[in-house]
Amino acid sequence: MLTMEDILAVTRVPFTSAEFKESVTARGLSLADISCISPSPGWYGPDEEGRRIVKVQCGSSEGTANFYMRPLEGLVVTVDVDRQEIVKITDEGRGIPIPGGTGTDYRYSAQDRPVEMDPVNPISMEQPKGPSFKIEDGHTVRWANWRFHLKADQRAGIIISQATVRDSETGEPRSVLYKGYPSELFVPYMDPDDGWYYKTYMDAGEYGIGALTFSLVPLNDCPRHSYYMDGVFVSSDGKPFVQSNIICVFERYAGDISWRHSDSSVKGVELIREARPKVTLVARTAASVGNYDYIFDWEFQTDGLIRVENVIGVVHDHFINYYLDMDIDDLNNSFVKVHLEKQETEPGTTPRKSYLKAKRYVAKTENDAKIKLKLYDPSEFHVVNPSRKSRLGNPTGYKVVPGGTAASLLDLQDPPQIRGAFTNNQIWVTPYNRTEQWAGGLLVYQSRGDDTLAVWSNRDRPIENKDIVLWYTLGFHHIPCQEDFPIMPTVSSSFDLKPVNFFERNPILRAAPNFDKDLPFCTLSNLP
Amino acid sequence: MLTMEDILAVTRVPFTSAEFKESVTARGLSLADISCISPSPGWYGPDEEGRRIVKVQCGSSEGTANFYMRPLEGLVVTVDVDRQEIVKITDEGRGIPIPGGTGTDYRYSAQDRPVEMDPVNPISMEQPKGPSFKIEDGHTVRWANWRFHLKADQRAGIIISQATVRDSETGEPRSVLYKGYPSELFVPYMDPDDGWYYKTYMDAGEYGIGALTFSLVPLNDCPRHSYYMDGVFVSSDGKPFVQSNIICVFERYAGDISWRHSDSSVKGVELIREARPKVTLVARTAASVGNYDYIFDWEFQTDGLIRVENVIGVVHDHFINYYLDMDIDDLNNSFVKVHLEKQETEPGTTPRKSYLKAKRYVAKTENDAKIKLKLYDPSEFHVVNPSRKSRLGNPTGYKVVPGGTAASLLDLQDPPQIRGAFTNNQIWVTPYNRTEQWAGGLLVYQSRGDDTLAVWSNRDRPIENKDIVLWYTLGFHHIPCQEDFPIMPTVSSSFDLKPVNFFERNPILRAAPNFDKDLPFCTLSNLP
Repeated sequence: MLTMEDILAVTRVPFTSAEFKESVTARGLSLADISCISPSPGWYGPDEEGRRIVKVQCGSSEGTANFYMRPLEGLVVTVDVDRQEIVKITDEGRGIPIPGGTGTDYRYSAQDRPVEMDPVNPISMEQPKGPSFKIEDGHTVRWANWRFHLKADQRAGIIISQATVRDSETGEPRSVLYKGYPSELFVPYMDPDDGWYYKTYMDAGEYGIGALTFSLVPLNDCPRHSYYMDGVFVSSDGKPFVQSNIICVFERYAGDISWRHSDSSVKGVELIREARPKVTLVARTAASVGNYDYIFDWEFQTDGLIRVENVIGVVHDHFINYYLDMDIDDLNNSFVKVHLEKQETEPGTTPRKSYLKAKRYVAKTENDAKIKLKLYDPSEFHVVNPSRKSRLGNPTGYKVVPGGTAASLLDLQDPPQIRGAFTNNQIWVTPYNRTEQWAGGLLVYQSRGDDTLAVWSNRDRPIENKDIVLWYTLGFHHIPCQEDFPIMPTVSSSFDLKPVNFFERNPILRAAPNFDKDLPFCTLSNLP
Repeated sequence: MLTMEDILAVTRVPFTSAEFKESVTARGLSLADISCISPSPGWYGPDEEGRRIVKVQCGSSEGTANFYMRPLEGLVVTVDVDRQEIVKITDEGRGIPIPGGTGTDYRYSAQDRPVEMDPVNPISMEQPKGPSFKIEDGHTVRWANWRFHLKADQRAGIIISQATVRDSETGEPRSVLYKGYPSELFVPYMDPDDGWYYKTYMDAGEYGIGALTFSLVPLNDCPRHSYYMDGVFVSSDGKPFVQSNIICVFERYAGDISWRHSDSSVKGVELIREARPKVTLVARTAASVGNYDYIFDWEFQTDGLIRVENVIGVVHDHFINYYLDMDIDDLNNSFVKVHLEKQETEPGTTPRKSYLKAKRYVAKTENDAKIKLKLYDPSEFHVVNPSRKSRLGNPTGYKVVPGGTAASLLDLQDPPQIRGAFTNNQIWVTPYNRTEQWAGGLLVYQSRGDDTLAVWSNRDRPIENKDIVLWYTLGFHHIPCQEDFPIMPTVSSSFDLKPVNFFERNPILRAAPNFDKDLPFCTLSNLP
């Protein structure tokens, strides 16, 4: 992948070219104001063969830190990364005006007046006794009924592994997820023009999510009382370096309800009003890939649910593939499609003409588990342990609850879609194979799509009652609007891993409600 | 609709019957422990004609408040509501054992040991200066850049009206939503058997969401610092009564981010790290319809987004239709389908074979706006004001961002589906008509589906540049699992109303970050 050293080096190369400099000054701009980025070229055929290239593009940061909003449209400098020399300069946009920078600077220090709204009083998730999670050996997180290993990874950002949840009856830890992380991000832009067609990023494999994560901003990226974790990564020359505070861990209480029931119809009982607050644990990182920001949350709930959320801070189609090595109660699991089928009734037997029935189909091989989601032909998707049964005889399991279901609409033979072919289905299941970790292939930069999830799973291997990996792709279509300018409000989407007959019953039924006496007493810290 | 007086009366009627009492005692149960509910009959033909009926069913609350878990299966008492007499007793389940009550009581007072997890320290959303919203005249809520009218309604639960958001540049209030509320809930059970086939509830029209809402539980249904609002409703005899504390309003900070950007590639600028916390305003109610609990949230964001969320506390298919009388900047609006279409490129013009293009289709009549959502043929759905343009020439608008997209799979000719025909599409748009307020019809109890949204919109009236109403159905398929027993953890789904070229730019770009000095200092209130 491109390293930070590569990026710093290639963005300097255009300034060695008289042609580039002449093009900048011909546009009436000063070279001192030009900032550049390092887009990857995708792979479109033999032109890219035999060398690592970057398509450097630049903008003017005169009067704004937001040089993405002042692009030198049509000026693309193709640079050989290893030789640090220019391969080609395309300069077709001199007639396109450079937008002004007014109002594009997003920094707080650059604002000259507040936003038009009544002020919001200070509000904070407060924990006078401090957070209730513990972190052992710097990486093992224990909280409520959860235990998991958390680490920063140069390519994946966050890796969760060996997640276990305590059984609500026996108190024993039970395995849920051996390893989970975003295995690839595919971001095709939708413009076939010369300065844009190649923008079909695969951010994890080409740049690295962790590599492009800067220290999180306390109180704003993460709430007070967060625990921050560093990443220890490797630079081009093999030396380690520390990226500090790139993961935060915090407990969340958002005023939500974990379960409730009121009832006035129970004989001999006064009105019943029972409700329980929902408190969760979040592990977060936030990467800045050029003008994109990606926020990655793993949220653990006491009812056994894991929510995997992505929040996105800039435009275009985004597909984020998650590697999920599920180990429900043990290694050997099966993938079950629970299909909702319309049943017609027999005339005369009931006043109803139809009803839904849930039918179970156990996937024997990979082809049985290539799922394109459909709204009018719905299913649930379970990973179960066929050898471990509940008291009622159900295999213990978790289901994937889809969200962010946008699918790629590119032509299957389009070069970017061949490389991003893991988006051809939304769910895939493969037998565990230690060489199959990254949906877009191990070596992604300028790859041709011959080492992807779509290729591996063509072998149609058996997956029943085996150590299986589920791959889920979270998709966003993003059509820009004016509210996205000059930095958009966040957009989020998520999918859930949810217990289904994993517990014998609601595992948090016995949880205590909130009592006022236990909650904090607060004053403003800036008061005397 | 059934009133609370009707419900209390009909659930007493079975106890006047020797046959019913004999059936209870023959099951080995004591009449003193029998609690009953009042399921509506749907409409399945002439049997129901000429009288209002209820199909009373009962369970034993011996040893548990959760009598739904101890049902007298097969015993259905059809009661004439007005005459308060029995029409028919079906008694077919004497051979079916009554499940034991052990472990089914959900009340905190009934628990004998805590749940198996490490304790979670006190955590609370704290506001030492108090909430920043103001409520004028008991109903007009002002907060940040929002102003709207909020009221409790016997049928709809919460009604939001005249919602305006302040323009981020001019500070002027601008209209977004004239009126919004859940117009019907359709809950078909999926069992054609005699004791079950008729359970195809339309909860808003048959019972009333507000009517079945009990006082919210402070600190558990709603966080500290919530404001509580009463409902003033009408009883059978026309007299008003107060249902207290059935709505809460609170500010939410959940550790989320409203926008962020970090950047290391701006020439002449140190590493940039900008992030802003997301604070929102929530209006909530929570109804208990028999063993169901529905939580209804309206969440207002400072970036102009409104999130409409439903949280569900029990089982089966659920379809919640929302009436959304959008008034974007004024009365006359249009509905625009922005269709994402795959474009093939011309060979030789670009290395790309395909890209996506967004094409706009303005709906002329109701038929153009009957939308079945499709994942592989995606669109955005905008409501715009064609007379009000942004500086760049875009009509100002909001889009509906779908969520909870489960569609009904029942046969279109099945009686419950005829009554719940508003679920035949997920989006409908009608011209405003003051007689068309409730998707399932004005009079729903035992209705035949001849006064529903599906019927009105058959007229295919013009909807372009008119005062239009958008109807959105949030759908859940629910296949029960053991974790749902005896009271399930909440499940949630939502859709968004999101500004799209409504503002000239990101309306919260100038918002201030959190600073530590502004946040509270907290101690435990139960410490000396």
